[in-house]
Amino acid sequence: MRAAAFDSGVGGLSVVKSLAAHKLFDEIIYYGDTARAPYGAKDQNTIKRYSLEALEFLSGFEPDALIVACNTASAYALDELRSQAGFPVVGVIESGVLALENGGVGRGDRVLVIGTQATIGSGCYQNLLKARGFENVTALAAPLLVPLVEEGIFDGAIVDETFKRYFGDLGDFDAVIMGCTHYPLMQPALGAWFKGAKLVHSGEAIVEYLKANNLVSDGANDTQIQFFASENATRLKEVASKWLDMPSLIKDKP
Amino acid sequence: MRAAAFDSGVGGLSVVKSLAAHKLFDEIIYYGDTARAPYGAKDQNTIKRYSLEALEFLSGFEPDALIVACNTASAYALDELRSQAGFPVVGVIESGVLALENGGVGRGDRVLVIGTQATIGSGCYQNLLKARGFENVTALAAPLLVPLVEEGIFDGAIVDETFKRYFGDLGDFDAVIMGCTHYPLMQPALGAWFKGAKLVHSGEAIVEYLKANNLVSDGANDTQIQFFASENATRLKEVASKWLDMPSLIKDKP
Repeated sequence: MRAAAFDSGVGGLSVVKSLAAHKLFDEIIYYGDTARAPYGAKDQNTIKRYSLEALEFLSGFEPDALIVACNTASAYALDELRSQAGFPVVGVIESGVLALENGGVGRGDRVLVIGTQATIGSGCYQNLLKARGFENVTALAAPLLVPLVEEGIFDGAIVDETFKRYFGDLGDFDAVIMGCTHYPLMQPALGAWFKGAKLVHSGEAIVEYLKANNLVSDGANDTQIQFFASENATRLKEVASKWLDMPSLIKDKP
Repeated sequence: MRAAAFDSGVGGLSVVKSLAAHKLFDEIIYYGDTARAPYGAKDQNTIKRYSLEALEFLSGFEPDALIVACNTASAYALDELRSQAGFPVVGVIESGVLALENGGVGRGDRVLVIGTQATIGSGCYQNLLKARGFENVTALAAPLLVPLVEEGIFDGAIVDETFKRYFGDLGDFDAVIMGCTHYPLMQPALGAWFKGAKLVHSGEAIVEYLKANNLVSDGANDTQIQFFASENATRLKEVASKWLDMPSLIKDKP
């Protein structure tokens, strides 16, 4: 099976890492819209337009499924993508909420969702959580976390002060949805702050979702991954080698 | 006189504020490429391409001059813009260095330039400073400052820790070039950190440059400003009202 995966830039690599680790696909075609990233503070119409352009590009590879490995694009563009794609389209929001349900988080438990301004502003997580019966949900945009991760700052004094600003007055939670693909790189720091909370990782969540919906290859071979980007694919591949820690999977030429 | 001004997004408003305060022009047409901002971590070819597209859009207004109110675009696209525009094109880098010279900073004084990864990576400031005889120049990319300003965080604990990380080991300076149009919003905090240093502000620097090169209107009327953006011009105007603190200057309709 060949999956296409799309993100605004490099963040979706944290999802690809989970997909590859679980050997769900024979091939993954990854496209990062690096020339226009990040999406997190952009307008919903822009996000929809860019996502449809990514679909057009990726459709050329005739994938068996498209994984929207970006919470912001999943929040705003999933319906349009589904209506135009000739194959299943899976986003990270439904799967994140499913992972919460499967992870033993109760309907009355205190759930925090963090994400970009656009993702949180869409109300997408909040509405779906409410529809599934979660009653105690707090949602918060945490825009500084993405640039911190992009600069390789995952913990330490700046992160501590940033957490204090964002989370200092919020109290405790039983579960935290890391609603942006950059955040898993900060998982140790988030885990230390939200002690005892279940942290939901978009990549691991989507693995569960794809398995449950039988959208995976039968075999168990290593996944071959090709990378494309709207600018500087070389830099994307470098980041991929570092983040994925699986350079042997990266195909250099289509 | 009608000036066109271009920035990747909202940062160039700090330049427009200086231009308007000094009443240099009868009209300013401002274009922010908000749908693709920020430029600071993007590839040089992308920055050139976007800048030429901005020129094409702004040329339709038949301006008397184009002000590139973005350090990153000034660093990479100025030559191309000049070769294609039928009017003078002024960037913030030459004017920043001129302001240093006019501001009594000596050739042996310790100069720090801070900017985006792209601006600092271009070597543009460093080369020009060297060519003008400045011998003691340190250049540093400080990518976190832009997202901090975008989130309205201009001082306090996160800023202190960020300054400590970037500047903690650098020692003292006689002058600091704020080589990104977002940084003037942090000028009080930067001034407190770099005590006694002359801080060079792109907006104030370009005012001097335009006057010295007689690229200004004769009269002294208020400047009428029109705002355009590649997405969400409404939000740009809201930010402009707040930053410029001169809402009466903003023309609602062309």
